[in-house]
Amino acid sequence: MKLLEERIKKDGQVRPGEILKVDSFLNHQMDIAFIGELGKEFKRLFADRPVNKIVTIEASGIGIACIAAQYFDNCPVVFAKKTKSLNLDGGQYTAKVHSYTKGITYDVILSKKFLGPEDRVLIIDDFLANGCAVKGLIEIIEAAGATLEGVGIVIEKGFQKGGKELRESGVNLHSLAIVDEMTDDSLTFRDEE
Amino acid sequence: MKLLEERIKKDGQVRPGEILKVDSFLNHQMDIAFIGELGKEFKRLFADRPVNKIVTIEASGIGIACIAAQYFDNCPVVFAKKTKSLNLDGGQYTAKVHSYTKGITYDVILSKKFLGPEDRVLIIDDFLANGCAVKGLIEIIEAAGATLEGVGIVIEKGFQKGGKELRESGVNLHSLAIVDEMTDDSLTFRDEE
Repeated sequence: MKLLEERIKKDGQVRPGEILKVDSFLNHQMDIAFIGELGKEFKRLFADRPVNKIVTIEASGIGIACIAAQYFDNCPVVFAKKTKSLNLDGGQYTAKVHSYTKGITYDVILSKKFLGPEDRVLIIDDFLANGCAVKGLIEIIEAAGATLEGVGIVIEKGFQKGGKELRESGVNLHSLAIVDEMTDDSLTFRDEE
Repeated sequence: MKLLEERIKKDGQVRPGEILKVDSFLNHQMDIAFIGELGKEFKRLFADRPVNKIVTIEASGIGIACIAAQYFDNCPVVFAKKTKSLNLDGGQYTAKVHSYTKGITYDVILSKKFLGPEDRVLIIDDFLANGCAVKGLIEIIEAAGATLEGVGIVIEKGFQKGGKELRESGVNLHSLAIVDEMTDDSLTFRDEE
């Protein structure tokens, strides 16, 4: 998505450890009109899928998912919660997710009340790198007997393995921008599909 | 707001420890069209204020703030982040917030890049009880030299002290629903302003 690539080039900052900071418009301060454009693009990419629920993960996925849901007939958004303290009461689906950037493994939980076999799910998140968060959400969707219609990512780090693995396993993944190479003074994006 | 009070009566669940669960439509699964109505009501209540930024706190405030921002000329949303590990680099405003429900004190951080004297801020959050989170955000807004235009809360627990203290200190606080009494089988709402 050209609009996004241009914005990343303009406002993104590359930091040591292959970190791409986009906190001025996406995941700390949020440019609401711009995120509306991302939402419209997700709808264009997944227009052929009968999505009736959007699933994301706290915290930075939530706002993007909520804005995007407006373009999917205002379907409900369910956000999985991260927790380090496992207080399960049997009423929750759970998956383990390892964060490479933070060096910790946490449990991701989602109430069984809000996901079931009738749900046709689009996962939305801000970043895809190793894919651990998305794989955790897919585990939960499978445990619920729901149907995964697709995965929509704002920025994929194409030089990490998550996107490749998900596509190879048959997941209908679309990333609005894929960064294939990243240095202090240049960003190379993959050509659009 | 009648629509909200009716929804809380229909779908809210009272749990021991004065907990009101509204996770089926507000803070785990999110009813996007309904939250749009909340956003419109925030705009009606704060229409006389020149809001140019919405500040909230992760995680459950984010989606509500993003939807609401669309009714405030798509102003940017900045969400403060909760962290237990204090890794400050001098580039962040910080405040300590105590969570009574979780029994922990955490640091709330917000990058200095995204809040300054030119900002006229509306704080939005899902719940107000003791008011610790809102007071933490106000501290940050004051440290930034920004102007606090108001605080918009979806559900206030009127039997806890946060709302009273904030109003007494002159804060322009509007809560869309104020629960004054809560038992297993009844909810009493304060009359609307």
